[in-house]
Amino acid sequence: MAAPKSLTPLLKDELDIVIPTIRNLDFLEMWRPFFQPYHLIIVQDGDPSKTIKVPEGFDYELYNRNDINKILGPKANCISFKDSACRCFGYMVSKKKYIFTIDDDCFVAKDPTGKEINALEQHIKNLLSPSTPFFFNTLYDPYRDGTDFVRGYPFSLREGVPTAVSHGLWLNIPDYDAPTQLVKPLERNTRFVDAVMTIPKGTLFPMCGMNLAFNRELIGPAMYFGLMGDGQPIGRYDDMWAGWCIKVICDHLGLGVKTGLPYIWHSKASNPFVNLKKEYKGIYWQEELIPFFQSVTLPKDCTTVQKCYIELSKQVKAKLGKVDDYFNKLADAMITWIEAWDELNQSGAAAGAPKGSAK
Amino acid sequence: MAAPKSLTPLLKDELDIVIPTIRNLDFLEMWRPFFQPYHLIIVQDGDPSKTIKVPEGFDYELYNRNDINKILGPKANCISFKDSACRCFGYMVSKKKYIFTIDDDCFVAKDPTGKEINALEQHIKNLLSPSTPFFFNTLYDPYRDGTDFVRGYPFSLREGVPTAVSHGLWLNIPDYDAPTQLVKPLERNTRFVDAVMTIPKGTLFPMCGMNLAFNRELIGPAMYFGLMGDGQPIGRYDDMWAGWCIKVICDHLGLGVKTGLPYIWHSKASNPFVNLKKEYKGIYWQEELIPFFQSVTLPKDCTTVQKCYIELSKQVKAKLGKVDDYFNKLADAMITWIEAWDELNQSGAAAGAPKGSAK
Repeated sequence: MAAPKSLTPLLKDELDIVIPTIRNLDFLEMWRPFFQPYHLIIVQDGDPSKTIKVPEGFDYELYNRNDINKILGPKANCISFKDSACRCFGYMVSKKKYIFTIDDDCFVAKDPTGKEINALEQHIKNLLSPSTPFFFNTLYDPYRDGTDFVRGYPFSLREGVPTAVSHGLWLNIPDYDAPTQLVKPLERNTRFVDAVMTIPKGTLFPMCGMNLAFNRELIGPAMYFGLMGDGQPIGRYDDMWAGWCIKVICDHLGLGVKTGLPYIWHSKASNPFVNLKKEYKGIYWQEELIPFFQSVTLPKDCTTVQKCYIELSKQVKAKLGKVDDYFNKLADAMITWIEAWDELNQSGAAAGAPKGSAK
Repeated sequence: MAAPKSLTPLLKDELDIVIPTIRNLDFLEMWRPFFQPYHLIIVQDGDPSKTIKVPEGFDYELYNRNDINKILGPKANCISFKDSACRCFGYMVSKKKYIFTIDDDCFVAKDPTGKEINALEQHIKNLLSPSTPFFFNTLYDPYRDGTDFVRGYPFSLREGVPTAVSHGLWLNIPDYDAPTQLVKPLERNTRFVDAVMTIPKGTLFPMCGMNLAFNRELIGPAMYFGLMGDGQPIGRYDDMWAGWCIKVICDHLGLGVKTGLPYIWHSKASNPFVNLKKEYKGIYWQEELIPFFQSVTLPKDCTTVQKCYIELSKQVKAKLGKVDDYFNKLADAMITWIEAWDELNQSGAAAGAPKGSAK
């Protein structure tokens, strides 16, 4: 059941690579053999007057803050500024079925045999094979070559469900919060765990945006990275927020979320003191956010991602608004995001397509 | 947080190794360096007139059917005959805090570096470190050396909960059901996945009894392997049944269940035609059993494993009795099992201790 191998890169015309950045994209050189066949959407997250250099030979469009403001008008306020959370603008303007997003400090990792890992290919395999959220398979992904469902796995569940999200991991610098970074500055992730698994229904996880792929048609409108960075009281919770939202909605809609392979090589730890400043409100807020998301239920008539997301925004306002006024603002931004998404993605056609994109 | 290394084998006086068998235990030769310091409880599952040979130098007690009948009297009918499900008798007569159980066709596996895996040591590490059933950690066991909780993991959940069960895996012959064995007779598990993880709360899994350890004090009375083998309409669901029961009860009591490392080398596939005969009722019954266990809720006043298990037996009778009369019989046997357990385990003392054991 593994995805077929072919000479044409998998999903070449059906996948965009979204990269948020504030610097020249030299890191793409290392990814050239894997990314060059694909289209890139680069979202510049800082000063729009700065020019970002992209290595020769890549097919890309680049959006800076001015472009975002021009395309979204007043709705641009739902897109974070000076924070990699702005990457979700790229999800919105893409016209493809699949998205892979990666940070510009992530390099090609090697497997234990020393072979370079084609992270994108593994994400695509993950997305194209089903997920198994309703029952745990002890030998991990049952659709992988050489593996299957073990004794005692109900036959009625062996078809699985469509996979919406593929969450990849990181060798070298692990994705730790500031307190853990401070306590363990030298800890490196050297363990290659050769597994992909479905995160069970009803279980939340910390979704990291560094190395992430998803099916835009299935879950795109819920992949909103919230309000972070400039003018916001919090940072480094953009991907976490998106992860809680998409998991609750995938569970409701019967979609799968996988984690595990592929690994990328995370090259550089961000500054833990800066991170602590960004995170500290999140660290105590999350103690209320997690129980909220664990207890969210969506009504049966929420049959689309958009309907689920709007319902979720209402519950955020009703239940988290009292934690901090920030969540009222965030709930409003969630609505704005959906409105903007729908404007740019009318009936799957090019209506409202982004203008002013560079090639 | 890994378990400390020492020259004395870990938990030497606090753990029994339970082995169900119908043959001479030559397989112990390979395990000698790892098992010899521990006490073995051997449960002979066939003809009691046959003598089972145990290699020199092992400290063991051996029970055949005559011993079981003598010790339990009329309650012996809750212990399966001519089926490895009889192993649970060993759990009951043990006086130790921890149990490791292994099948006699399981050998020492090697890790990817070629080193022999001390399965028992890994199980002990799993049992002595906490579990994290309430939130998924994407870097797997956060208590392992070189790993921690990732960004976004709630701090209030980082203490974890006590681990009740450690479920190990198998290289070579995977634990497939008869239909999968028939379809993939040559499939071998060659993938060493270097991970231990907690099975999230609310998620069921197929627990295999081949390579399993648990904390008897925390979960022992729920580790009943049901009615299988001679005179029963079903086989090869003994460990599955126990797995569903213990998971529901661990979830209720806030205890953890881990799966992953250690691997053993499973040497020989059992006959798929024989297995199909044993399994076929289970294969369709499980389609009703899984939803039953997924929806079981235990009342708050079920504060001990025994209370939980008796309540579960009532629900089995009430809801599964109509699937087949077998489940009425099984529900009664569940009660008998608890009565026998309590008789043999009065206030942790030796009251009702097994007689006639060989050393």
